[in-house]
Amino acid sequence: MADQVTILAIAGSLRRDSYNKAAVRAAQALCPEGARLEIYDIAGLPLFNQDEEKNPTPKVTDFKQKIRAADAIFFSTAEYNYGLPGVLKNAIDCASRPYGDSAWNGKPVAIMSAAMGSAGGLRAQYQLRQSFVFLNMDAVVQPEVAIAAAHQRFDDKGNLTDETSKKMIAQLLQNLVAKVRLARQAKK
Amino acid sequence: MADQVTILAIAGSLRRDSYNKAAVRAAQALCPEGARLEIYDIAGLPLFNQDEEKNPTPKVTDFKQKIRAADAIFFSTAEYNYGLPGVLKNAIDCASRPYGDSAWNGKPVAIMSAAMGSAGGLRAQYQLRQSFVFLNMDAVVQPEVAIAAAHQRFDDKGNLTDETSKKMIAQLLQNLVAKVRLARQAKK
Amino acid sequence: MADQVTILAIAGSLRRDSYNKAAVRAAQALCPEGARLEIYDIAGLPLFNQDEEKNPTPKVTDFKQKIRAADAIFFSTAEYNYGLPGVLKNAIDCASRPYGDSAWNGKPVAIMSAAMGSAGGLRAQYQLRQSFVFLNMDAVVQPEVAIAAAHQRFDDKGNLTDETSKKMIAQLLQNLVAKVRLARQAKK
Amino acid sequence: MADQVTILAIAGSLRRDSYNKAAVRAAQALCPEGARLEIYDIAGLPLFNQDEEKNPTPKVTDFKQKIRAADAIFFSTAEYNYGLPGVLKNAIDCASRPYGDSAWNGKPVAIMSAAMGSAGGLRAQYQLRQSFVFLNMDAVVQPEVAIAAAHQRFDDKGNLTDETSKKMIAQLLQNLVAKVRLARQAKK
Repeated sequence: MADQVTILAIAGSLRRDSYNKAAVRAAQALCPEGARLEIYDIAGLPLFNQDEEKNPTPKVTDFKQKIRAADAIFFSTAEYNYGLPGVLKNAIDCASRPYGDSAWNGKPVAIMSAAMGSAGGLRAQYQLRQSFVFLNMDAVVQPEVAIAAAHQRFDDKGNLTDETSKKMIAQLLQNLVAKVRLARQAKK
Repeated sequence: MADQVTILAIAGSLRRDSYNKAAVRAAQALCPEGARLEIYDIAGLPLFNQDEEKNPTPKVTDFKQKIRAADAIFFSTAEYNYGLPGVLKNAIDCASRPYGDSAWNGKPVAIMSAAMGSAGGLRAQYQLRQSFVFLNMDAVVQPEVAIAAAHQRFDDKGNLTDETSKKMIAQLLQNLVAKVRLARQAKK
Repeated sequence: MADQVTILAIAGSLRRDSYNKAAVRAAQALCPEGARLEIYDIAGLPLFNQDEEKNPTPKVTDFKQKIRAADAIFFSTAEYNYGLPGVLKNAIDCASRPYGDSAWNGKPVAIMSAAMGSAGGLRAQYQLRQSFVFLNMDAVVQPEVAIAAAHQRFDDKGNLTDETSKKMIAQLLQNLVAKVRLARQAKK
Repeated sequence: MADQVTILAIAGSLRRDSYNKAAVRAAQALCPEGARLEIYDIAGLPLFNQDEEKNPTPKVTDFKQKIRAADAIFFSTAEYNYGLPGVLKNAIDCASRPYGDSAWNGKPVAIMSAAMGSAGGLRAQYQLRQSFVFLNMDAVVQPEVAIAAAHQRFDDKGNLTDETSKKMIAQLLQNLVAKVRLARQAKK
């Protein structure tokens, strides 16, 4: 019980039938025993404006609480225009402020991506990793899960059907959970 | 007259007293003869959702029209969490869709950044440049203008007071205008 | 005659049967009329040491002369360990020094990559583009040519057999030559 | 005794009076109790050629052995042309091959940089971090140590004189050693 791990999962796209929303649902089913993956929908967050950061909307407050309550974070990101979707980066920005009150600080994290192109969203992943250096988030190194040609790996109902991808996501989550447990042990 | 060049300038921050908004105003005054810099405020754009991309809000339609009407684009970007502000990337994403109808396609562009830190927003600039490869935007190579320690280079009213920065911005705009004129010549 | 364009082509790998050496040979045959692509072999350049930069080896001197004599540069790069091959970056470093005497300064450039993986060497391409900002090299924006699964697109003798790749390389070279001619026109 | 940690430190420049060589020497003196930092000089490694990778030079064999014998790696890198020095990337490439026999695999790592410019070598650090994803090297996230204006922070004899930099390097090494110890604990 005490060793239970809670992971907050965030898809980097607002589209209803987003492959990354589907990937996050797939991840939920692939979560290792003793861990639970909760999905958070970033729709409804405001565009970040520093002038408003001390009067956060209820959605921003809720988002930061959910991040803080989680033991670890899991991102599945789309790639827009060879970079991180603005909508995902904006969510990250919202929860990172005001200065000194970032909800991300110190959270272990794992990332993946899904995209229709052949690079599978890799470019977005490296931009996430660069932000983690500032945000002080320790990211799982491998496996690198980038689901290319995503339209061929999910069925019409948004179920991940590709076995290789499933195994990689399961491994990624296992590594994330191991990272959380190791950090817990260190604090004892 | 026929050789007049119109530049659409976009600041990558919503903050009222943003250094990058101030930089864009400074750029307006530093624009070379025969060129005019029009400032566009990205506040009010929606968070991009592909499900809505065929029913754009009036703001999105207006934004795309302004981009199309311009001969060139000028970005002055902040840097959030070691990357492009979500709010700026989201604006870029909004005007890039639907597929095949990107307003950015083929536009010459120049970029700069201003930030309080010692790197002056450089990390955000490289992420912009990576997106330009997809967006098919030909970017001015030099000078690289990254105003570090921005709080020391603008006065309390948001006027750029640093002479070196002014010269660099003027040169950057000259190079952008030259790029536009060269492309025009090629089409004749 | 006066409008002839000379392109210096460099493969970013020392392997004898390198896909990128093969790509550069393919590019030679795909060069548009009025342009000539000369292949330069970077084997034999020393590892860059700033202490020696004022006493360059004959190979370094020759390399810099060849770059200076060319109207444009063409790189076809491998990708090692998710980045630019050290051997190619070292060649770039060698010809960029001493300070103020870079042979690359102002050269138009086009890039491509070939690799066995599914990303086709893209990560190396973005690192090249980042260096071009410092080196003051104006790079062709599109098409982005990254030959993935390279072992399926070249035959056993190192001939590029993939028609799509051939068309893209031909277009890339055309765009490079157009860039050179436009810059020439501007100087008149 | 059993808990002793050995760190292999590598400077990313061949220059005799390199700031990064000096930084590595400074790190040696700042190593926490129970840890020992051994400096490895990459001069003399060959330019990587895949055709030769199964007949490594004695220097390559020695380098790989030293990496394998170490508990962790420490890089202090210069920045050349807005990227990783070719000479350092080449060293990394040499020890990463042949496929399946990389000496880097699984090694905890910490990085820093020193450079004369105002960004202090940051661009090179992000390229290192991107390679670590492929190399399966778990990097310390913070502090990010980038010694800008390096000529003002070392004295004429190559001693690091800047107290802030010293504290940050000491913290970086402490975090690296903690990472090694945590991983050891996990294996028990």
